[in-house]
Amino acid sequence: RRMRAGPAGWMALGQTWLVVSVVGVCIGINAALISIVTEWLSDIKMGYCADGWWLNEQFCCWEIEGEDETNACDSWHPWSDGGFARWFIYVLFAAIFAFVAAHLVRALAKYAAGSGISEIKCILAGFVMQGFLGFSTFFIKSLTLPLVIASGLSVGKEGPSVHVACCIGYIVAGWFPKFSSSQAKMRQVVTAASAAGVAVAFGSPIGGVLFSIEEMSHNFSIKTMWRSFFCALVATFTLSAMNPFRTGKLVLFQVTYDRDWHFFEIIFFVILGIFGGLYGAFVVKFNLQVAAFRRKYLQSHGVAEAVFLAVVTAMIGYFNRFLRIDMTESMAILFRECDASTGGGTGDICQTSIQWRLANSLLLATLIRTALVVISYGAKVPAGIFVPSMAVGASFGRMVGIMVRAAYKAYPHSGIFAYCDPNVPCITPGTYAFLGAAAALSGVMRITVTVVVIMFELTGALTYILPTMIVLLVTKAVGDLLGTNGIADEMIRFN
Amino acid sequence: RRMRAGPAGWMALGQTWLVVSVVGVCIGINAALISIVTEWLSDIKMGYCADGWWLNEQFCCWEIEGEDETNACDSWHPWSDGGFARWFIYVLFAAIFAFVAAHLVRALAKYAAGSGISEIKCILAGFVMQGFLGFSTFFIKSLTLPLVIASGLSVGKEGPSVHVACCIGYIVAGWFPKFSSSQAKMRQVVTAASAAGVAVAFGSPIGGVLFSIEEMSHNFSIKTMWRSFFCALVATFTLSAMNPFRTGKLVLFQVTYDRDWHFFEIIFFVILGIFGGLYGAFVVKFNLQVAAFRRKYLQSHGVAEAVFLAVVTAMIGYFNRFLRIDMTESMAILFRECDASTGGGTGDICQTSIQWRLANSLLLATLIRTALVVISYGAKVPAGIFVPSMAVGASFGRMVGIMVRAAYKAYPHSGIFAYCDPNVPCITPGTYAFLGAAAALSGVMRITVTVVVIMFELTGALTYILPTMIVLLVTKAVGDLLGTNGIADEMIRFN
Repeated sequence: RRMRAGPAGWMALGQTWLVVSVVGVCIGINAALISIVTEWLSDIKMGYCADGWWLNEQFCCWEIEGEDETNACDSWHPWSDGGFARWFIYVLFAAIFAFVAAHLVRALAKYAAGSGISEIKCILAGFVMQGFLGFSTFFIKSLTLPLVIASGLSVGKEGPSVHVACCIGYIVAGWFPKFSSSQAKMRQVVTAASAAGVAVAFGSPIGGVLFSIEEMSHNFSIKTMWRSFFCALVATFTLSAMNPFRTGKLVLFQVTYDRDWHFFEIIFFVILGIFGGLYGAFVVKFNLQVAAFRRKYLQSHGVAEAVFLAVVTAMIGYFNRFLRIDMTESMAILFRECDASTGGGTGDICQTSIQWRLANSLLLATLIRTALVVISYGAKVPAGIFVPSMAVGASFGRMVGIMVRAAYKAYPHSGIFAYCDPNVPCITPGTYAFLGAAAALSGVMRITVTVVVIMFELTGALTYILPTMIVLLVTKAVGDLLGTNGIADEMIRFN
Repeated sequence: RRMRAGPAGWMALGQTWLVVSVVGVCIGINAALISIVTEWLSDIKMGYCADGWWLNEQFCCWEIEGEDETNACDSWHPWSDGGFARWFIYVLFAAIFAFVAAHLVRALAKYAAGSGISEIKCILAGFVMQGFLGFSTFFIKSLTLPLVIASGLSVGKEGPSVHVACCIGYIVAGWFPKFSSSQAKMRQVVTAASAAGVAVAFGSPIGGVLFSIEEMSHNFSIKTMWRSFFCALVATFTLSAMNPFRTGKLVLFQVTYDRDWHFFEIIFFVILGIFGGLYGAFVVKFNLQVAAFRRKYLQSHGVAEAVFLAVVTAMIGYFNRFLRIDMTESMAILFRECDASTGGGTGDICQTSIQWRLANSLLLATLIRTALVVISYGAKVPAGIFVPSMAVGASFGRMVGIMVRAAYKAYPHSGIFAYCDPNVPCITPGTYAFLGAAAALSGVMRITVTVVVIMFELTGALTYILPTMIVLLVTKAVGDLLGTNGIADEMIRFN
């Protein structure tokens, strides 16, 4: 770890840091642009802003944000007042978005399809794939990602965001002979860029560093870790300085669970862990079958397939409150802690009077979303699996949480519930959603330490560190018993 | 990652998990016992409980904890009412504790002296040191650690706690032929145990896992990481189930900084980072000189040296409010955010009327503590350097924070301070203390990702993740420029 002597050594060292900084800044700017466009496209499906077509709902209604949520904003016009017409326009936009995205990918950059994480793992292990990290891949993937997310497909932006980040790393480092002439040095920059990709996708810099260690790198070294750390920091800092959402927050779903957990809840946490393991094994197994089917029959119908998936997703999803809205938004609602102050305004996720309807809705959301993930992941558009998995886990977890709370309300003094302090709410369904999301993410990717750190950077719910670890342990045990690997590894083997 | 087939494979796999679980449980229990004894010994220096000599101040005054802090507890008697007598008894106890600890170490287990981290790094790299992880080392180190901490020496319990944990791992795994016959398998268990050691010392399970990756392991593998994860989880869970402080909290100094930071504050954060780097280089350099001096002249006067250090520390420290109390307690005060509700009761760290006196006190505390760390680390008693370094950084950081806040109060509208919202407090000195602690810890150990995670697990201050990363980056740059390594590596080279 000693510094190198001499001006040549300093130059070389300086060049590395310069490259990593530039890569970080570009990743941050790109992520901010993607976020802004995604937000706008998602809102345009529901209506438009009279003050200017380029404003999304949030900025259109900026002035009156303090007031009541429903219909307080006059400048924002829904496309139609009728239920059916609204549904039709929603589906239509989804189809258009998916068509444009899939067409661009097919016409201009085939490598921009899919998540890209499996392929990058191969590249970092030493394989050479010409053009996979090239400029056209980068450009088309950045351009189509917002379209795909806005189309409502059950795909996430995290995998593509890592891929785009790695492209940036590869392109920028290619300008310097030091890196363009050395595969090994280039791989280090790409590893650092992958850390920054996760960092900006989740707003989780340390999670990004760990991701690059746990999932990406084959030859771990302290030096690589340092570069990942630095690149993730620069990228996150750039993103936070650009502040695309004007919230000033990096933390995506800030929740503070001020109630502690009880030891008896571990029983239910274990259920969530088992669900995570089963979900992971199920998705990996059937997604591979879908991939085989796709290769056999749909090889040349990528665009039609994407449009079909988007239409089906939009048609079904419109009727479930948790599927209709954006996945991150729906998770933010599911993670929420219920207390006196959030009883009415925040939708009615906290109302006990409709708890069975909610549980039913959540069960449907879990099942439908799982099916959609299985058929959507691998479609010929940019598509990640992180966020959809978390959304599935969150809806299942919240469902379990609501049922446990209902059981507690019915028998507050019997059996295990006797340990609860009767003066404070005993069960917090939001924490079950949080743990379910962690379990599903870990189940499908088979990464653990990274997931713990990402979940904490996403929410800040530090009191739940032990439950999270227990859940992930169970998930891993179930996954090992079923003998599946992570989806990225299985995809590599499949290809 | 596939499971092994056949009953023999299952047996072998089960044995590994059994060993790691038992190791984790033992580490958790041991840590809880050490905490309880330390607490009691620290309080006995100031007074005793009339209701029972075995109660510490907290439990003695359990019933009336809600009331005013000062003199509200009748059962707790200070040793004397006079100022001088009280000081004398304080020094006397410190001397007795140090004498007993140093004597036990010299008579029964020479290896129990020092931190142990350097030696464990050597063992994990393949060296064999007979008896270093043996039972007598474990027993004597666990027994003398509370005495040393309670004696008030500027040493921490984290290094020794890792050493003790590794001993437990070595002893437990030694019962099984699978591990006692294979050095490589034994090293994996010891690595996992070191993760659990950090986990219980800081209440930071993920920090422990990262520590075992960043500082300890030479051949990083996902399998080792898994075992570290599991062992840290079991140990932390055991500790939290035993709940030695009856707070139910793992988080040592829970702080929630609800104000965000400003971009211009980065100037001051950089100062903290530079301080961390300089502090690390200074301590490493002079501590090595002290070690050389010690080896030359004090080889056979270990007990006298420890008693001398304890007496000097106690005599000087008694007159500085931040040095007199326990280091963790003092950090908890320094990290605190000042708002309306904590104006009066919580000592007067938040009062602006005495801010210059406080800054002066903090400067003195920083300088004296640094000097004490330099001469104390390496004394022939169990001694870590984590917590003292953090305490130094926290006092320096709080001093900087108080000065910045004073500058802001003097010129609220000029220059950089114009960016502050005048309606909310602009500068939060507690966050400077937090960042200073991170910088000093990183400066002396030269670990980074681990430090970020440990700081967040210690406090839960997630909004400050970017400032923390910036500070640590500056610290690393300064340390690299000065060309020093971490203290553990330097100690290895010295020996």
